Amino acid sequence: MTEPLRIGLAGLGTVGTGVVRMLQTHPDLLAARAGRPIEITAVSARSRRRDRGIDLSAYAWEDDPVALAKRDDVDLVVEVMGGENGPARATALAALEGGKHFVTANKAMMARHGTSLAAVAEAKGVALRFEAAVAGGIPVVKALTEGLAGNAIGRVMGVLNGTCNYILTRMQAEDAPYEQVLEAAQRLGYAEADPSFDVGGIDAAQKLALLATIAFGAPVDLESMIVEGIERVSLADIEHAAELGYRIKLLGVAQVTGEALEARMQPCLVPAGSPIGQLEGVTNMVVIEGDFVGRIVLSGPGAGEGPTASAIVGDIVDIARGLIIPPFGRPSASLIPAARPGVGAQASYYLRFLLADAPGVLAKVATALGEADISINRMRQVEHDGPEAPVLIVTHRTERARLDAALATIAGLDVCREAPVAIRIEEL
Amino acid sequence: MTEPLRIGLAGLGTVGTGVVRMLQTHPDLLAARAGRPIEITAVSARSRRRDRGIDLSAYAWEDDPVALAKRDDVDLVVEVMGGENGPARATALAALEGGKHFVTANKAMMARHGTSLAAVAEAKGVALRFEAAVAGGIPVVKALTEGLAGNAIGRVMGVLNGTCNYILTRMQAEDAPYEQVLEAAQRLGYAEADPSFDVGGIDAAQKLALLATIAFGAPVDLESMIVEGIERVSLADIEHAAELGYRIKLLGVAQVTGEALEARMQPCLVPAGSPIGQLEGVTNMVVIEGDFVGRIVLSGPGAGEGPTASAIVGDIVDIARGLIIPPFGRPSASLIPAARPGVGAQASYYLRFLLADAPGVLAKVATALGEADISINRMRQVEHDGPEAPVLIVTHRTERARLDAALATIAGLDVCREAPVAIRIEEL
Repeated sequence: MTEPLRIGLAGLGTVGTGVVRMLQTHPDLLAARAGRPIEITAVSARSRRRDRGIDLSAYAWEDDPVALAKRDDVDLVVEVMGGENGPARATALAALEGGKHFVTANKAMMARHGTSLAAVAEAKGVALRFEAAVAGGIPVVKALTEGLAGNAIGRVMGVLNGTCNYILTRMQAEDAPYEQVLEAAQRLGYAEADPSFDVGGIDAAQKLALLATIAFGAPVDLESMIVEGIERVSLADIEHAAELGYRIKLLGVAQVTGEALEARMQPCLVPAGSPIGQLEGVTNMVVIEGDFVGRIVLSGPGAGEGPTASAIVGDIVDIARGLIIPPFGRPSASLIPAARPGVGAQASYYLRFLLADAPGVLAKVATALGEADISINRMRQVEHDGPEAPVLIVTHRTERARLDAALATIAGLDVCREAPVAIRIEEL
Repeated sequence: MTEPLRIGLAGLGTVGTGVVRMLQTHPDLLAARAGRPIEITAVSARSRRRDRGIDLSAYAWEDDPVALAKRDDVDLVVEVMGGENGPARATALAALEGGKHFVTANKAMMARHGTSLAAVAEAKGVALRFEAAVAGGIPVVKALTEGLAGNAIGRVMGVLNGTCNYILTRMQAEDAPYEQVLEAAQRLGYAEADPSFDVGGIDAAQKLALLATIAFGAPVDLESMIVEGIERVSLADIEHAAELGYRIKLLGVAQVTGEALEARMQPCLVPAGSPIGQLEGVTNMVVIEGDFVGRIVLSGPGAGEGPTASAIVGDIVDIARGLIIPPFGRPSASLIPAARPGVGAQASYYLRFLLADAPGVLAKVATALGEADISINRMRQVEHDGPEAPVLIVTHRTERARLDAALATIAGLDVCREAPVAIRIEEL
């Protein structure tokens, strides 16, 4: 198999440009590693004229990515346009149905249509790969699909959005509120002008859905997940958490508890000394727990031109070498929805109350928790001026539904001056 | 391809038992992920009678592993006997020359004979895989060979021996000298009765040699490496390093500097706040730096029944899926020895001297370093009782040969009361 593998590249933004640059930088290295040359034959993007700082003169141009996907001189289509539907999906279907391999960085499309696209790929005997869609340059899809394939996976966790981790890290380091840090992040290019996709947890949730689908052999979609962003994480909670020995992270967790498969992307407290607690800035981290392997931790750059191109080219090399496996690591027909999605595993919680500073007030809160059978691990009243006392409680493990009921009771007490805050503590 | 993949297992110690247990625990999961059943057909070990707590009754028995490798009902041989030559190598050759796939956990054999065995595998068109030989359950061979295959690798680093990291961690935590911690580790089973293979750095160096061979496409053998163990790491240096913001780790580093490929396994100072600095206990960690991906960090259990079995079964699943690539990620004939092996990259150094406590002594040391063109970043005289003063120096970046010459000069000064200690500082 020494014929060149011929690439059609759809999309010439940051990532597409990075792919071109990588293939142009390392032709000999890639040929040695892949066992055959890897060549771009055609490219497609919205604007042909834009100067991207790379030489595209050797490649055919297509205005329409679907036409690119149908070219006879293309064996593999790389899609880096983005978008859940529209041209990206049309290109994917044209490529796969035409018997061409397909490599994508498109998490939105894969989270929504991944299993149906996988079925097409499997029927046609071609590869569909998406390492770049999750955690940028970290080869985590490969680790889960291949390296750890012998394990029953118990839990997958991830800090999967660099923007959110950057903002939370800076809030703590600079003692600055969310809005102020977000603005600075936007100026530095770490956050989009419209940041809602990132800070709302959607981007990270799409990535977790893909990892969970591979890990548990059950299609996980966003609708079955708990998704909360970081917009409501207060500086006060970050600081109180730090005093208690925790950090607040936007953490994705997918885990099996009995019959239930639960997937959540939400702010969590994690031990400050744990690898996730120590993760700073835009770096991503994924933790995989398997029944034989134990706990594996992978970290690295989760976005950017180079890391994303690295993931795409890794997928291309796999395909050039002849690796064709089901996209989610087992036949898509065998992916079976979980019997009980979204049922909450027990956890400890960090609670913050603002209470009237009067005799007997703490007892009322403690009584309400006790009556709900929630026991208290730690309780601390924070020093304060004025008539209202911030009170922090760390509970022992309990069910979320039970906790919510107790919090509703407490919120109704006349001594409670603000809606209680509850943040899950993830044990590591 | 739904025929079962038939395994012959040579070796039934801890790891072999783990492989049996894993294949017996997850037959359906493995068949779903591999696309075909994976079945053990025959096993071999020294003692047939020993009770290993697993049911071997369904498998044929061979006293001779070479006979096992030649059986018609074996498609893939798993070798977990160990040993650089002898039965392990004979079994490898019998399997590969007979056109059978071969999976091994044997770092000693692979570090010594890996490239020649790879040539046989490539000639026969079969797979030779050794994920379990490096860093236990961490899929690092796969990350380097496949996931990051598009990158030119600049540096690979690793904490690859759990025994050493455990001992160094405990020395610091318990303020206890090497011999005392080693004894405790032996009692707990974290160190062998004869620990020289681990604490001397040989075990870790073999693993680094394998990673370096993959990363740089150049065969790296132990003879071309700098290998130092942890036997001479003193509690004093651990504590002084901590005061300066560092940890001492047995760290493997393979890197390209200009034309030179350098591979070292030796105690190094690393920043206390870095992922490697924070790594405690028996956990392993590998850091890979690629030109496009940036820095990827992988950590997890580096040894033990479950993690090692996980790596072996991951390799088996790959082969069941039809993945057959050159063992070192490119044809063994293309592995070319580095033009300049072992030439030292520049580094900063931690130096410790024991000097007479008299006027002008520090000046003499500083002068000797200055005359060798080595500049001083930090200098600290440690509080002391008695007539001898411990002096710590952190240098700026310099060449090792230059440093050694200066240290020889200083050792010859009449004020120098002990051979100077020099430990490399690895920047992260």
